[in-house]
Amino acid sequence: MLPDPIRKFADLFAALPGIGPRQARRLAFYLISQGKSVIAELAKTIYELSEIKSCSQCFASYTNPKTTAALCSVCSDPQRRPDVIAVVEKETDLISLEKTKKFPGRYLILGELKKDGILDAVQKLRLNSLKNFIKRELKGQAEEIVLAINPTTYGNINAEMISQELRGAAKNITRLGRGIPTGGEIEFADEDTLGEALQNRS
Amino acid sequence: MLPDPIRKFADLFAALPGIGPRQARRLAFYLISQGKSVIAELAKTIYELSEIKSCSQCFASYTNPKTTAALCSVCSDPQRRPDVIAVVEKETDLISLEKTKKFPGRYLILGELKKDGILDAVQKLRLNSLKNFIKRELKGQAEEIVLAINPTTYGNINAEMISQELRGAAKNITRLGRGIPTGGEIEFADEDTLGEALQNRS
Repeated sequence: MLPDPIRKFADLFAALPGIGPRQARRLAFYLISQGKSVIAELAKTIYELSEIKSCSQCFASYTNPKTTAALCSVCSDPQRRPDVIAVVEKETDLISLEKTKKFPGRYLILGELKKDGILDAVQKLRLNSLKNFIKRELKGQAEEIVLAINPTTYGNINAEMISQELRGAAKNITRLGRGIPTGGEIEFADEDTLGEALQNRS
Repeated sequence: MLPDPIRKFADLFAALPGIGPRQARRLAFYLISQGKSVIAELAKTIYELSEIKSCSQCFASYTNPKTTAALCSVCSDPQRRPDVIAVVEKETDLISLEKTKKFPGRYLILGELKKDGILDAVQKLRLNSLKNFIKRELKGQAEEIVLAINPTTYGNINAEMISQELRGAAKNITRLGRGIPTGGEIEFADEDTLGEALQNRS
């Protein structure tokens, strides 16, 4: 009953994360109601995602038509310390950390960690690529590796495992500071957070 | 910080109904991780939505490269009764009704009704186009117009108003039957539904 282009659109969109079949269909009708130029613009915007490259060092996405080097803007910036590396799960975590403008080092994007505490093949390859970088460029030891992994139960298990994988690759393997978030109230902080805040008082 | 194509994608997608900025960004990274052929396929699929035409009679979307008539498959089907017309809000409502295979007539898609019980300009134009069709093709009176509008408080107000707009245009102006849905239990039916079910017993 649905015209072919709508059915095809709905099938493809419903397969994207976080979009259900109902929403996919509604999106199709919404786009049609917006007219041909909106549709063409959206199609072009999606197509342009194929210009995105993946940094060969930290695996962040970047576009840099000027250079032929396969490095993102952080990894190709001589001002950034190569010997301090933050290991993050997602590109969006990297962006959040960059926004603070307080991190002098570089990154490694691991990809979302599973809850079973086991690294997948891609994650193992990326950790190995970091270890090779440290061997090659930092004479075998980084100054610091920050495991910027969420302080959740699963995150803690994963961080522990990654820390073992990276043993010896850095003088210090650290994690992000814990405590009461800005704007948070002591009264409503959970026990664990408050405990960490006490330990990390400054 | 975000590469241009990702930012542009995220901005456009976050403007679509039901997609937030966070999900838009995650979609971008997801698509990039899926590779160029998936991206190209999605862009093409969206672009093909521009082939969709709107039926000049019922305003359903259709693609029919074979004919030059500006009519959808229902409106161009000589087996469908032209004198029984269901007024629906959304194209998806039309699809739901078609799936029953029990409606012999045609449709008019009004577009989503507002909660203030006032028709917008497009909706008024569409109702007028229906009235003109009835004058022209049905000698001024349809056999039946079914107001297939949700039986909610707002739906009832809207149906009442549309019914007044269409007064005289049909021998009968009806609404969908009310009662206990298939698989529903009397014990859990609300009072109103049960009342309707009693009145409409058959």
